[in-house]
Amino acid sequence: MTSAPTKPQKAQAPKTAITPTRAENYAEWYQKVVRAADMAEMSGVRGCMIIKPWGYGMWELMQRDLDRRFKETGHDNCYFPLFIPLSYFQREAEHVDGFAKEMAVVTHHRLTMKDGKLVPDGELEEPLVIRPTSETVIGEAMAKWVQSYRDLPLLINQWANVVRWEMRPRLLLRTAEFLWQEGHTAHETKDDAMAETVRMHEVYRDFVEEQLAVPVIMGEKPAHERFPGAVNTYCIEAMMQDGRALQAGTSHYLGQNFAKSIGIQFQSREGTQEFAHTTSWGVSTRLLGALVMTHADDDGMKTPPRIASQQVVIIPILRDETQKAEVMAYCESLKAEVQAQSYGGQPVRVKLDARDLPGGDKRWDWIKKGAPILLEVGPRDVAGGQVCVTRRDQLSAGKKFLARADFVAAVATELAAIQQALFDAALALQKTRTVTDIKDWAAFEAYFAKDADSSFVSGQGFVRAKWAGDPDSLAKLDPLGVTIRCIPFDQDGKEGNCVLTGKPTTQDVIFARAY
Amino acid sequence: MTSAPTKPQKAQAPKTAITPTRAENYAEWYQKVVRAADMAEMSGVRGCMIIKPWGYGMWELMQRDLDRRFKETGHDNCYFPLFIPLSYFQREAEHVDGFAKEMAVVTHHRLTMKDGKLVPDGELEEPLVIRPTSETVIGEAMAKWVQSYRDLPLLINQWANVVRWEMRPRLLLRTAEFLWQEGHTAHETKDDAMAETVRMHEVYRDFVEEQLAVPVIMGEKPAHERFPGAVNTYCIEAMMQDGRALQAGTSHYLGQNFAKSIGIQFQSREGTQEFAHTTSWGVSTRLLGALVMTHADDDGMKTPPRIASQQVVIIPILRDETQKAEVMAYCESLKAEVQAQSYGGQPVRVKLDARDLPGGDKRWDWIKKGAPILLEVGPRDVAGGQVCVTRRDQLSAGKKFLARADFVAAVATELAAIQQALFDAALALQKTRTVTDIKDWAAFEAYFAKDADSSFVSGQGFVRAKWAGDPDSLAKLDPLGVTIRCIPFDQDGKEGNCVLTGKPTTQDVIFARAY
Repeated sequence: MTSAPTKPQKAQAPKTAITPTRAENYAEWYQKVVRAADMAEMSGVRGCMIIKPWGYGMWELMQRDLDRRFKETGHDNCYFPLFIPLSYFQREAEHVDGFAKEMAVVTHHRLTMKDGKLVPDGELEEPLVIRPTSETVIGEAMAKWVQSYRDLPLLINQWANVVRWEMRPRLLLRTAEFLWQEGHTAHETKDDAMAETVRMHEVYRDFVEEQLAVPVIMGEKPAHERFPGAVNTYCIEAMMQDGRALQAGTSHYLGQNFAKSIGIQFQSREGTQEFAHTTSWGVSTRLLGALVMTHADDDGMKTPPRIASQQVVIIPILRDETQKAEVMAYCESLKAEVQAQSYGGQPVRVKLDARDLPGGDKRWDWIKKGAPILLEVGPRDVAGGQVCVTRRDQLSAGKKFLARADFVAAVATELAAIQQALFDAALALQKTRTVTDIKDWAAFEAYFAKDADSSFVSGQGFVRAKWAGDPDSLAKLDPLGVTIRCIPFDQDGKEGNCVLTGKPTTQDVIFARAY
Repeated sequence: MTSAPTKPQKAQAPKTAITPTRAENYAEWYQKVVRAADMAEMSGVRGCMIIKPWGYGMWELMQRDLDRRFKETGHDNCYFPLFIPLSYFQREAEHVDGFAKEMAVVTHHRLTMKDGKLVPDGELEEPLVIRPTSETVIGEAMAKWVQSYRDLPLLINQWANVVRWEMRPRLLLRTAEFLWQEGHTAHETKDDAMAETVRMHEVYRDFVEEQLAVPVIMGEKPAHERFPGAVNTYCIEAMMQDGRALQAGTSHYLGQNFAKSIGIQFQSREGTQEFAHTTSWGVSTRLLGALVMTHADDDGMKTPPRIASQQVVIIPILRDETQKAEVMAYCESLKAEVQAQSYGGQPVRVKLDARDLPGGDKRWDWIKKGAPILLEVGPRDVAGGQVCVTRRDQLSAGKKFLARADFVAAVATELAAIQQALFDAALALQKTRTVTDIKDWAAFEAYFAKDADSSFVSGQGFVRAKWAGDPDSLAKLDPLGVTIRCIPFDQDGKEGNCVLTGKPTTQDVIFARAY
């Protein structure tokens, strides 16, 4: 037998668009996806990021939806100063245990040229801290604005940038500067303030699950994990694909602690002077990181339709110039038809990608960005009155050819199906990787024993188990890098033994490694 | 004749809601209006303001409208770091004449307790400047992103806070921190970049005139008033009620200057390496100050309907509790009917003011805020199926009683009429107080001789006169506190003599005092 002449083999297309894959190196995969999806990148300024159009578009849609919810629940937007005088922190530092010290401090207000070099000049009498959060500066204003019960409730929200000096920055998840909203409210009674705290907690859950397709566990932080000064801290905890937890939003009831320290007092209906009950709550651009860690795969991002600034992308496939006019005209009218459809009460967001690039390059660009639906349109599709459809969340299912009218009629249903499919997949992961049968320390330690960095492979996740509430017992968790994420609201009340101490208790908590 | 017993006189209602009046003290009147309208206030942080809900609501509507215009003209939003390394300014300081030095400088990243007092700690290797504008940091990113002509045009906008240390802060107009948008674009050719500069200049004009009802003069800054490094600076100049100018927006063509200094280079269609042509353009929250100075009167603010977060306010007038249910039900259904009307493509924004306060107090609150239309509804109005209407811009015309259905049917037309009336009044002022017959220095000096602080009374305004362009001649203006605001686009080309030098020239410019 003679061997056939060897044919030069075509270069193999890479199996996945992102290298390394999740399984190979989860942390690096994450960074690569954020860059490949062109959502954000680190800037030349230490620990600070640039949020690029595809990522910022998601943030804008998140803002729009949240802002509507805040206004519907009676909140007004304001804007407060970026700077907080150092003296505002003095009191806090003396009284608050968890006082955070890593903050950017402004000490000068001028640049001066000295021996050919610019140097800071004009030293401030009192240094100014860049806000890490605005409780103090908003509280000072509230103390002035609130005089009578008639001024309550005072329901304020702010969209702003904040700065927390991070020693180990991580793109989108933990950066020196990030964007967020912070709600700050003052109320007559504990009941009113608790109702507000719970209301905004639920607003966050609904928003994160419905808009971001990220399932969460609702619960309360144990005392040692509370926001400094808070009486109760409620949180929503999401599971990332490596089984780690990410706190996706918090809502704090601050009792009268904060009002007392800053002087938010009012004349009550009975004529007495009372301290207000206050709350605060916030979510940030770290949700963009949560989206990637929840939905992306080894081909890049999968953007939930609700927050995709382009839900359908049309890519004209042209082999020569003579076809151009006809194909482009078909694409333009297709775009108009899709845009005329409504999803989530808004016109479907559709982009015709007319860039001067090969169709295949454009296809991969949008796959990596995670546009929910791709349409490729070539001369044969024009002739056949059809479209070639790729659903980003079903990439392995390949392309489908549909009659144009059928596709247009079903586009809103299809987007809803994608949104639901992303949520379902994330919920399935959360269920699969939450273990509930760990009853003692030996089993607990064995579960979390494996190297944290390979946890996408190891399949670690949430441990839902008993904890008797003893603060001294927490030290056992430190070597494992595990924390208590929350005391979930849905408690079955059955008695068991604390996995840390063996003491009997009915309280279930969620243990996990976390971002 | 015996004298009649003296009756105790009722306290006279103040003639105007704002004291002092514009004529008595314009500068103080301005501060009082901003506070009375509850738009903004100075914070406890030097030079920094708090933008309150009524003012922030205007800013949000301005943002929404501008953002739509930016996106329609092809721009994407991004977010860039707040911090700029000191070294980025070094080059600028060496090369740029108008380099601004008053900037907030971060030198430390930690607070530490020392002898019971918090002090800055953790000195940074390189100080960070809080952005006064983002040309440098966005330019650095553009230099990375732009490789080929295919990457151009690069059309970016950012909504952000910026800081410029102001020695004499003035609420809304000149504060250490303010909010703005900054557009930054890079193009292949001079023609493309100039077209962008002109396009955004026109976007600003249309926005300011249509949305804010503030008429402006379009023109170009003379060389000495250009943005540092710009080849051309286009501006829109508005006239405030005291006759001073306020620069309401600028659009700069930066030529290749900026691209050369920062290295924004691309491979051209011909394969050569070229420097990009860049532009930048911005408007800020100082427009809120311009609104007050343009439209307010001695009773407070008059908010243009297009940017009023409440366009119609319903005030229930209750004398006793028994009437409450009926009046409130009438008001609620009235609100729904008004809301169902459309103005400017959106539902009419209507508020039912149900606060526990006397009706008269609420009326004055909304007059001072400048809500365009007030409706007072008492039991007699309910019985008669009518509404009692006050148009804020026609306060002296008093209240009008209209059949409810007639009011509702006409509400959008009425809002449009108010918007137009505000614009017309401002335009009339601008025309009346622009003089065009000053031909020499003696007349010019006499016109501006009066004390600047009394200019609301003195009737000074814009002088449209000849200037031959000699930079040395400008020193004559300094003692008067007058500047050249712009070289207006509409030039008649007639020859005359420069009012500063007497030299013959065809060039008209606008001279004025300015904010």
